[in-house]
Amino acid sequence: MDQAGNLRAISDPEIDGAFLASGGVARVREALERDELPVLEAEGLRIGAPIARPGKVVCIGLNYRDHAEETGAAIPAEPIVFMKAPNTVVGPYDEVLIPRGSVKTDWEVELAVVIGRTVRYAETDEEALAAVAGYAISNDVSEREFQLERGGQWDKGKSCETFNPLGPWLVTADEIADPQALGLRLWVDGEPYQDGGTKNMIFQVAETVRYLSRFMVLEPGDVINTGTPAGVALGLPGTPYLRAGQVMELEIDGLGRQRQTVGQA
Amino acid sequence: MDQAGNLRAISDPEIDGAFLASGGVARVREALERDELPVLEAEGLRIGAPIARPGKVVCIGLNYRDHAEETGAAIPAEPIVFMKAPNTVVGPYDEVLIPRGSVKTDWEVELAVVIGRTVRYAETDEEALAAVAGYAISNDVSEREFQLERGGQWDKGKSCETFNPLGPWLVTADEIADPQALGLRLWVDGEPYQDGGTKNMIFQVAETVRYLSRFMVLEPGDVINTGTPAGVALGLPGTPYLRAGQVMELEIDGLGRQRQTVGQA
Repeated sequence: MDQAGNLRAISDPEIDGAFLASGGVARVREALERDELPVLEAEGLRIGAPIARPGKVVCIGLNYRDHAEETGAAIPAEPIVFMKAPNTVVGPYDEVLIPRGSVKTDWEVELAVVIGRTVRYAETDEEALAAVAGYAISNDVSEREFQLERGGQWDKGKSCETFNPLGPWLVTADEIADPQALGLRLWVDGEPYQDGGTKNMIFQVAETVRYLSRFMVLEPGDVINTGTPAGVALGLPGTPYLRAGQVMELEIDGLGRQRQTVGQA
Repeated sequence: MDQAGNLRAISDPEIDGAFLASGGVARVREALERDELPVLEAEGLRIGAPIARPGKVVCIGLNYRDHAEETGAAIPAEPIVFMKAPNTVVGPYDEVLIPRGSVKTDWEVELAVVIGRTVRYAETDEEALAAVAGYAISNDVSEREFQLERGGQWDKGKSCETFNPLGPWLVTADEIADPQALGLRLWVDGEPYQDGGTKNMIFQVAETVRYLSRFMVLEPGDVINTGTPAGVALGLPGTPYLRAGQVMELEIDGLGRQRQTVGQA
């Protein structure tokens, strides 16, 4: 989308790791300045995720003090790391499916960090931040029974079909003055449930990227979900888990707005 | 490799999800029968993994009774599921790197199941097995301190660079009469450490695929590591974790043999 709010077609087939690694952002910016990108008619278009099929989706658990408290968990001494299957990523307005047999499907608005440059063993926050291509909204949809009551590890409740709406935009890092100064909000059927700020992250973006790069090689197109603030169904009186037909809306300052209808797998 | 032990070049650029989903195995088999695939000189070739960059690597934890016992864990009531970053996959003879700061890098010989057809909510074992393209050897290299002592979830100790040697072959499912009748063995510096059999899996291949398909969509090219038998360093007297310069060798009946030298990241 350009500054005037028009959708523009880019010439690269997809925004993915190869696009980011090969200077795709600069390519698009220059083409936009030369007015070479055709305007698209928004009507009837499906908006996909702003990163096509990440190599991995890495998540930080319990990264907001108030969310750790609402779930009854201790404040983590170092980042809790888990993963979602990369094929959970869908567009920001796509339907989210409650898995068969699920009664505890929950929401999580999160700041997603998209990696633009390979990074391993980053030594400084600067090196870590230099590997960040940009930011997006992520809904880290979670099935709490699968995650917490079905043996062992969280990934089982995090990888169901459609469980990671992403977008609508990938906002490049240079356009976000301070990733630790963004408000995050989530509504279900118009009712506000989450209203937090990235200033309350326990492990901030730079530290998170630096930390992760000691345990895995981060590559262009990888997505990091940086944790959710308080206000998920798991932590609320009456645990109001999602039901088919409900509508989730998510917003992060400067990153746009998502909207998903809940369906049944 | 053909029946005579010659390496043959295939015309597809890579064996990946798209290759498997588009009937690549049948294509190669027919070309081989027509003797259309050129013989390669093995000398000096690097052998890559038999699946190029899987969409996901899903792992089953503690899936052999003797291994659960050696780690002091309870026998799981249902499969324990975790993930490795897909970019951990390397060739069967590539160097395995001990991560910086690691003192507990460990081995795990495993039967890898490679998915050839998209499967969600499989209802029967037959449907699950029909989605299996074939089998390979996997070394689910693990850093035990990162996995177990650094907060929360196992993935942190499973996703380090080079942590998933795979191959040398993808043996198609029709060539494996019974995936639950295979011996698995692992040596370090010629010393035998693991010597198990897939007959001792708690959750067998068909059940594992069926189970996973309820929690995520499995796609062509996805890899499932089905767990390791007893004999890992974590469970042995003196916990003889890997040191740079050591050599791991792994073998599964009918699936060939791997060999990795251990290096330092």
